[in-house]
Amino acid sequence: MPGNTFGTLFRITTWGESHGPATGVIIDGCPAGLALTAAEIQKEVERRRPIAGSKITTTRREKDQVRILSGVFEGKTTGTPISLMVANEDTRSKDYSKIQDMYRPAHADYTYDLKYGFRDYRGGGRSSGRETLARVMAGAIAKKILLQKTKTVIFGHTIQVGDLKVKTFNRSEIEKNELRCADPVAAAKMKKMIEKIRFTEGDSIGAIIEIVIKNPPKGLGEPVFDKLEAELAKAMMSIGAVKAVEMGAGFAAATLKGSQNNDQMIKKGGKVHFLSNNSGGTLGGISTGEDIIIRLGIKPVPSISKPLKTITKSSKNTEIATLGRHDCCLAPRIIPVAESMAALVLTDKWLQQMVQNSLR
Amino acid sequence: MPGNTFGTLFRITTWGESHGPATGVIIDGCPAGLALTAAEIQKEVERRRPIAGSKITTTRREKDQVRILSGVFEGKTTGTPISLMVANEDTRSKDYSKIQDMYRPAHADYTYDLKYGFRDYRGGGRSSGRETLARVMAGAIAKKILLQKTKTVIFGHTIQVGDLKVKTFNRSEIEKNELRCADPVAAAKMKKMIEKIRFTEGDSIGAIIEIVIKNPPKGLGEPVFDKLEAELAKAMMSIGAVKAVEMGAGFAAATLKGSQNNDQMIKKGGKVHFLSNNSGGTLGGISTGEDIIIRLGIKPVPSISKPLKTITKSSKNTEIATLGRHDCCLAPRIIPVAESMAALVLTDKWLQQMVQNSLR
Amino acid sequence: MPGNTFGTLFRITTWGESHGPATGVIIDGCPAGLALTAAEIQKEVERRRPIAGSKITTTRREKDQVRILSGVFEGKTTGTPISLMVANEDTRSKDYSKIQDMYRPAHADYTYDLKYGFRDYRGGGRSSGRETLARVMAGAIAKKILLQKTKTVIFGHTIQVGDLKVKTFNRSEIEKNELRCADPVAAAKMKKMIEKIRFTEGDSIGAIIEIVIKNPPKGLGEPVFDKLEAELAKAMMSIGAVKAVEMGAGFAAATLKGSQNNDQMIKKGGKVHFLSNNSGGTLGGISTGEDIIIRLGIKPVPSISKPLKTITKSSKNTEIATLGRHDCCLAPRIIPVAESMAALVLTDKWLQQMVQNSLR
Amino acid sequence: MPGNTFGTLFRITTWGESHGPATGVIIDGCPAGLALTAAEIQKEVERRRPIAGSKITTTRREKDQVRILSGVFEGKTTGTPISLMVANEDTRSKDYSKIQDMYRPAHADYTYDLKYGFRDYRGGGRSSGRETLARVMAGAIAKKILLQKTKTVIFGHTIQVGDLKVKTFNRSEIEKNELRCADPVAAAKMKKMIEKIRFTEGDSIGAIIEIVIKNPPKGLGEPVFDKLEAELAKAMMSIGAVKAVEMGAGFAAATLKGSQNNDQMIKKGGKVHFLSNNSGGTLGGISTGEDIIIRLGIKPVPSISKPLKTITKSSKNTEIATLGRHDCCLAPRIIPVAESMAALVLTDKWLQQMVQNSLR
Repeated sequence: MPGNTFGTLFRITTWGESHGPATGVIIDGCPAGLALTAAEIQKEVERRRPIAGSKITTTRREKDQVRILSGVFEGKTTGTPISLMVANEDTRSKDYSKIQDMYRPAHADYTYDLKYGFRDYRGGGRSSGRETLARVMAGAIAKKILLQKTKTVIFGHTIQVGDLKVKTFNRSEIEKNELRCADPVAAAKMKKMIEKIRFTEGDSIGAIIEIVIKNPPKGLGEPVFDKLEAELAKAMMSIGAVKAVEMGAGFAAATLKGSQNNDQMIKKGGKVHFLSNNSGGTLGGISTGEDIIIRLGIKPVPSISKPLKTITKSSKNTEIATLGRHDCCLAPRIIPVAESMAALVLTDKWLQQMVQNSLR
Repeated sequence: MPGNTFGTLFRITTWGESHGPATGVIIDGCPAGLALTAAEIQKEVERRRPIAGSKITTTRREKDQVRILSGVFEGKTTGTPISLMVANEDTRSKDYSKIQDMYRPAHADYTYDLKYGFRDYRGGGRSSGRETLARVMAGAIAKKILLQKTKTVIFGHTIQVGDLKVKTFNRSEIEKNELRCADPVAAAKMKKMIEKIRFTEGDSIGAIIEIVIKNPPKGLGEPVFDKLEAELAKAMMSIGAVKAVEMGAGFAAATLKGSQNNDQMIKKGGKVHFLSNNSGGTLGGISTGEDIIIRLGIKPVPSISKPLKTITKSSKNTEIATLGRHDCCLAPRIIPVAESMAALVLTDKWLQQMVQNSLR
Repeated sequence: MPGNTFGTLFRITTWGESHGPATGVIIDGCPAGLALTAAEIQKEVERRRPIAGSKITTTRREKDQVRILSGVFEGKTTGTPISLMVANEDTRSKDYSKIQDMYRPAHADYTYDLKYGFRDYRGGGRSSGRETLARVMAGAIAKKILLQKTKTVIFGHTIQVGDLKVKTFNRSEIEKNELRCADPVAAAKMKKMIEKIRFTEGDSIGAIIEIVIKNPPKGLGEPVFDKLEAELAKAMMSIGAVKAVEMGAGFAAATLKGSQNNDQMIKKGGKVHFLSNNSGGTLGGISTGEDIIIRLGIKPVPSISKPLKTITKSSKNTEIATLGRHDCCLAPRIIPVAESMAALVLTDKWLQQMVQNSLR
Repeated sequence: MPGNTFGTLFRITTWGESHGPATGVIIDGCPAGLALTAAEIQKEVERRRPIAGSKITTTRREKDQVRILSGVFEGKTTGTPISLMVANEDTRSKDYSKIQDMYRPAHADYTYDLKYGFRDYRGGGRSSGRETLARVMAGAIAKKILLQKTKTVIFGHTIQVGDLKVKTFNRSEIEKNELRCADPVAAAKMKKMIEKIRFTEGDSIGAIIEIVIKNPPKGLGEPVFDKLEAELAKAMMSIGAVKAVEMGAGFAAATLKGSQNNDQMIKKGGKVHFLSNNSGGTLGGISTGEDIIIRLGIKPVPSISKPLKTITKSSKNTEIATLGRHDCCLAPRIIPVAESMAALVLTDKWLQQMVQNSLR
């Protein structure tokens, strides 16, 4: 089946190339009766945009004005498909004409040609990060449903850039710095490091981010293949540049014994408590109600001004240095995208649980 | 949608509880004309079974005799659903009667009750590792198709148990030791460590395994949501006990610069070569033709004889020590399961690429 | 996608060839908590079996003993896949050896070879009517859910055989005669006609049946493509021998004016009433709450003892007369199958409506 | 699953309300490399538009200018989602304000309120026939693929309006008259009849149309549930106003004996011939290669100026006469829609057959 649809009951289909006329998403399966305005979606879209004046993100600047083309009537969702669209404006396609016949290393140029026979090379075409704009628009609706119906909140933060790791956690700091980092001291160091790598070295750098789902509904996830952690892993790995996903203790669980890793349970004050959260909020593919914790390994931005070896479309050896308006470290801009993907998964599974509860 | 189906064109649906009469799988979408015998499937099933006399795996012993109930005629697949079944024999259900009203920590007991209202507690019911037998039966067919049509080979090996890491790689060693470890020296140490943890400490231990797909077809994977790495991540995270997945450089990419991480390309001897494989075999969700490299973080077996805190079904505080016939370190037995899941993903994407190529 | 799965949330996958070891179905998505016994399913299976001693149905006799292999624990569904199986017993495969190389007219022999390259010719293999046994097993569960949760009842009856049409309707007569006909006078004539066609002429005859869904839930169906009538049409046309489907006035609507066909509405006694039911119970793809009325055109049984022209597998001209144990008129045996398909569609849509209602 | 998606490999998702800003469709799964222009799609869209000056269709006039927003680069499809959009222009929404609180008989007003709790009442919102514009845009691409790759041609024609039936068949006449009728004498009578019903009686009339698929590929269709005839039946019944579907002999098969209905086969001139086509081009759910023949029963347009009984949203009895710009007989305008649906089904199944052929 074609690959541009995500979700089963709350289902999105995205479309659009980086330098085509527009980028959009259809949300099919949003139940009727949700109050919804373009402004609410716009707010999330703004979080994904490059920060004006920032030295660590791309300088591409677009208004990214969200339009609702269907599915909302008199301020409420009607139960019919919601079509959202944003025009592409700042598309300097000629920037790309010279790489038309070259494969940029670590980009999808080579593989798109392998798969499709040719490609829209302008700005990466469909493989561009601009596609994630559609995910964020849809995610804004999913986030609203979760907040309103289950008081679930999703946020992400940068926990490592290169070798620099955070040492403190203060959630209120996250949206105050360009790195979306909960440790302002680390954030300042990370920023300095990124600027040096970008402007002095003409290079880029990888990072690790963490996504936290606070107060998730209990009982979500569909064993055995559609386990909550499996769906989340797919959702995250479908974001370009994400090369690793772990839940709870993750890879560290390899070094733990069962007596250390098993999250013990107690009843206290009338409530069930887990004494630890190594599971990261799921057991057997189903949410326990504890925070869901996901960490993502992000590769460095492939586009760098250092020259690297590559081949041309006609298989000749050459070198390439990618000049242009690129991010240097993707962590802060991937965060709203990853939050959106988490929200889409949870909303879908929450709706599925309605069905599971139907005979009780 | 219900969660017991995996794949789109080559699609499997598994069924069966640990202590029910049987465990099975339907493979729908296997094209007609593949030579297939029960013996071929049996061979893979044997690789998943506990090793007789082993001190590191469960002592549950079943013949696990594979029966083909449909879809094969005169030794060839007919294009209709292939139904495979294995009887459950060695089911000592009374072993479990005492935990009927208790939630075993790090097991799915609590969450199955949350989700479904009650559960088949015998041997973990549907959440038992026995379910993976169905995956291995289906995976055997997928592996055969890949080997025959694209010369693709998939194998897994243990690369870490607790803090012990492999230091050498000799592929021919893998199936010679109980750990499925390519470093026989490390394997011996791992075995000793596991026996100590199991028999002296009454505990269990985590591990890391690596899955390698040699000679994969080029151009597989469906951007944007059904990227090859996204499907593989889901496939792997759907295996109980897997808590982390990474491709290529994985989390280590966080510490790399673009100039280090980007896999450069050259043309040499009439062929395209990548100078490194940090990507792990995919770019933009599509296979490059390089080896596909996946590493999985495996949590320690939850069932241990050390007593731990937990609650009863009626929410009373208590302690539990799980005696029984359990594995101590899951790595060697998860390997054939993970190989199978990889084979299912690849076969499905290979069939999808037939469609993509249809207008050229 | 492979074609042996039906439904989205309440989803069945069937398997089995006519002369293979068994026939079965997996029901994935049946919510937990439904009381269920094999005996209840058996009851519906009996309605589909050839009637002992009947002169109008096949003489193939099998016990058709239903086994529940998974998904039910302590008498209730667990929310995990329900695997149902019936052994194939009375399979005289040698009856078919002579037609191994011939294409029986109006059978699927020719097209299975076209599609798959070869076929299991024994008893029609997968294209045999025996496959509908799996549908009836699954349908029994769907019927139970509908009856229990929404008081919906589904029944079918024969309204025409050849040129003979029913003139009266008495629902209590339906299960009293071999034709499943609500008009006992017509039923007697139909039976006589069928016996003559079968034994004197060595021929078979077509029929029309009607499926009635009493007291369906309101608001079911998913515009625009998955309209309730569209799903029902597909469900019915997927039954072998069904060549026509109509809802409500159906083809007769072609001769009506809007003022005649439009079902007017009034409020009376506190309830909404429709003054007619030309729509057959749906408007715009959604159930109105009125009876859902479907009529099916059934072709004559292809297997007849009159010789007809056909070709061999190697494309030589020949003649064929199908001797064997065949039905003559399929109407009474298709009724439980069509009821089952209707029940599957309704249950699926009823579960989907749970999702639609979630934000209100 | 939400209902606005059709197809599996060649998959469309439509969106848009009658009086919203636009109507659109995403085609996901169109393989790369098909030459495609907006003009080609426009041509089919024109066939669906009301005929200027016609007295038998609506007077709503819109340019319906097709825009390609993604998925095509340098005149060829790229393998990524194709987004097509048409602006809605001639939307006199105030026409509908008076029916905001009334349920128009035989429309979806009542059922949309039942299902969703409220509705976009302007022009029928999502239940408007304008939605079929999206199907025709997608169908244009499917038709092009079929013509180019398999030389398959699909056309429809009106065979009955009220009691008036065609008596002759001349394919070249079809697009020459407003009725899309292959019998010009009958067409003239039909037109006269419709004008009388519309202008003198203020009423509307039903019809029967036939869809013919010439030269279809052999071997298409996926037994058992996704039989070609089952998919076609769903496709057709998903079109508003279609109340009946039959294949080949259809309901008439009820009156036939096996010896009459069975299509005999002979080999002649090196080719396989069927001596009749009662099956309508499929056996066992798979295409034989003969013409595929489908007939559709179309109900009269619900909107008429004769007053009829209905109820208000608050359940009060009232009367309604629908004045406005409505069609009187839908047959000619449904034809391109039904052709499109047939093309979508066939293209999807043709792509699926690529997969089936992969191991041979």
